[in-house]
Amino acid sequence: MSHQPHPHTHTPLAAPAAPTGPRGADTTAITGIARLVTNDPVLGEGPLGLIQDAAVVIEGDRIAWVGPSSAAPATDNRVDAQGRAVIPGFVDSHSHLVFAGDRTEEFNARMSGRPYSAGGIRTTVTATRAASRNVLHAGVGRYVAEARRQGTTTIEIKSGYGLTVDHEARSLEIAAAHTDETTYLGAHIVAPEFADRPDAYVELVTGPMLDACAPHARWIDVFCEQGAFDGDQARTILAAGAARGLIPRVHANQLSHGPGVQLAVELGAASADHCTHLTEKDIEALAGGSTVATLLPGAEFSTRAVYPDARRLLDAGVTVALSPDCNPGSSFTSSMPFCIAVAVRDMRMTPDEAVWAATAGGALALRRTDVGRITPGARADLVLLDAPSHVHLAYRPGVPLVAAVWQGGSLETGSLTAG
Amino acid sequence: MSHQPHPHTHTPLAAPAAPTGPRGADTTAITGIARLVTNDPVLGEGPLGLIQDAAVVIEGDRIAWVGPSSAAPATDNRVDAQGRAVIPGFVDSHSHLVFAGDRTEEFNARMSGRPYSAGGIRTTVTATRAASRNVLHAGVGRYVAEARRQGTTTIEIKSGYGLTVDHEARSLEIAAAHTDETTYLGAHIVAPEFADRPDAYVELVTGPMLDACAPHARWIDVFCEQGAFDGDQARTILAAGAARGLIPRVHANQLSHGPGVQLAVELGAASADHCTHLTEKDIEALAGGSTVATLLPGAEFSTRAVYPDARRLLDAGVTVALSPDCNPGSSFTSSMPFCIAVAVRDMRMTPDEAVWAATAGGALALRRTDVGRITPGARADLVLLDAPSHVHLAYRPGVPLVAAVWQGGSLETGSLTAG
Ligand SMILES: [Zn+2]
Ligand SMILES: [Zn+2]
Repeated sequence: MSHQPHPHTHTPLAAPAAPTGPRGADTTAITGIARLVTNDPVLGEGPLGLIQDAAVVIEGDRIAWVGPSSAAPATDNRVDAQGRAVIPGFVDSHSHLVFAGDRTEEFNARMSGRPYSAGGIRTTVTATRAASRNVLHAGVGRYVAEARRQGTTTIEIKSGYGLTVDHEARSLEIAAAHTDETTYLGAHIVAPEFADRPDAYVELVTGPMLDACAPHARWIDVFCEQGAFDGDQARTILAAGAARGLIPRVHANQLSHGPGVQLAVELGAASADHCTHLTEKDIEALAGGSTVATLLPGAEFSTRAVYPDARRLLDAGVTVALSPDCNPGSSFTSSMPFCIAVAVRDMRMTPDEAVWAATAGGALALRRTDVGRITPGARADLVLLDAPSHVHLAYRPGVPLVAAVWQGGSLETGSLTAG
Repeated sequence: MSHQPHPHTHTPLAAPAAPTGPRGADTTAITGIARLVTNDPVLGEGPLGLIQDAAVVIEGDRIAWVGPSSAAPATDNRVDAQGRAVIPGFVDSHSHLVFAGDRTEEFNARMSGRPYSAGGIRTTVTATRAASRNVLHAGVGRYVAEARRQGTTTIEIKSGYGLTVDHEARSLEIAAAHTDETTYLGAHIVAPEFADRPDAYVELVTGPMLDACAPHARWIDVFCEQGAFDGDQARTILAAGAARGLIPRVHANQLSHGPGVQLAVELGAASADHCTHLTEKDIEALAGGSTVATLLPGAEFSTRAVYPDARRLLDAGVTVALSPDCNPGSSFTSSMPFCIAVAVRDMRMTPDEAVWAATAGGALALRRTDVGRITPGARADLVLLDAPSHVHLAYRPGVPLVAAVWQGGSLETGSLTAG
């Protein structure tokens, strides 16, 4: 869905430029919005395109109109935001939701300073392979719904806990039942069976596994890190995927300096994810390219690691996205509001920057123009906050502030009285 | 309400030692609890008194029985926890909820590195004095309900934004409508009108203001800090309150080293709150006394300050409690789960220690034996988590995991199907 930039804020519902939903679809106006984040600088103030005392009109699954509350056109339905804030639904560009097994004790031991012979990702691989399709499907559904209740309306989901041809393909089929943003991550770690033959595993990942997975995936990803895949292997894997029409994204520079970020930029990857350990050259590469730096503070939070330096990236002109990186090993949170609060506190992002990164930034990391903004023609993904401003997402850490969520125009969470 | 230690976990509902609720009150069994935190080492394993595959019986507003799910007695109603965890309701021993006004822009400027001529507490004092009783009452109700949805079933509320005889008394009257745990904090800062005559303000606080406030308060508190009240002033204020039957608690050693902690222990205060800057002598005093160290990580989170060292306190044998310190200036969170996650990540508490501190620790900080534990005779304050273990409160930061809350035996939050 392409996005139409829209020059006026007062366009009436029936004006030529506005309607993009199905003709004759139901219209709903959300009025009385104290502060509306549109992420469209044409519509409002600053990079967030902020409008005070705003209204939004939804027609079918699309945004049809945005403007001052007092000028809202007549609609079939009307919802009064009662002085609260509305922001675009969060766009989470990085999650690992197709998994089974329980790693609570591994986390507990790590945070309690107790020894624990953790199998790491391998533990989850074993459990995921052993799990039934129904169990995995239910798990993904549970976490997608949990994320949605916290305001996430677009979510990318990776494979990467199967690591055989059949198990990776199954993971992607399951992911595809929940999202269009599926990512083939056969190259998460070298499968245990190939521990002594990593190059043979790369051949599998770029051969039969890719054949089986490509039909179910939009993206290809690789964990480029010491102990996982080196720069040459990552390049081979991403190139093979690209040749099959999968767009690259890279787990890059999470645990140490490495070639991941520069490789991502060189290959035109949509995103380099983590970006925790960066050299000046890495920053220059990101600033000079179109690759988004997706920061995942949940991982540093839950492993007591040093946070990525968002300020340094932003000051260099790099586009930054935020994601919870939901996975059972290093970051078992689905909460974008939590990531915003931590990004402001510990990564020196401003509240505005963090909210932008969690919405418009995530959309760029997924090369989407139809989400992450509230502008005519965009998908009607909106979050009503139980707060007068989006700043409260950082100001009120941990407090569940999501009062209602519309996804594709339908109210998925929250109950509202029509005005 | 005194607590009866209970030697058996299998006591049937009608046995002499168990029933403590009103005779003939409705009974409800919560069965199928994967992990139950009782905080009673007699009932289960370790300091948390953990029981696996447990059931709890509520009779009226009290806990009547705790034991294995398979041995749960017949009851009027039955709720199936479906393999989830149950913990005691959180006990929040430190909040500043009687306030009006908006300090969003002050927070936003601080976190965005923009200059802002902040009036600090004075801003809130001006707005609170100007607000109607109804507005203040509604605000307290809103934040108490918000905290309850996050699992808090006991909450202390302070005055401290009135700073005149009438405004302080009004704040405490309002607080008393929402909780039994009210704290007179006329000594929050020197009232603006007394800026040049701090000793005259202390005379007011210990004289007419105390007269007006004592009938509405259980506790007396003072902000012992440079720029607020020094050790001598704090001693005078706390002694005056104690003479009127108010029990001392102290804002101590938040921003700098000072006399607060040792004064708290010397006066037998229930709690020394903040405890961020401590000397060895402070730690020794806490370890040798009965004063609880209440840590408030929300304040350090929202001001980018260094966290208190919980590990050092715990290793020295000090009793530690956690509280969100909900207030609009330095910590606008009502979320105990958030505090638990931060305490584990940044204060080196184990998940078990943090959950204990947020429940049993808070109860000790309020000298309560009827809350903070799930044991026969205790008030039926329980939280059902949407997780198999209390560890998930740290393992899943930011995720709203509270599925249901019982307060005094009545289901306040969440909907459950009876089994
Ligand atoms: Zn990842
Ligand atoms: Zn305080």
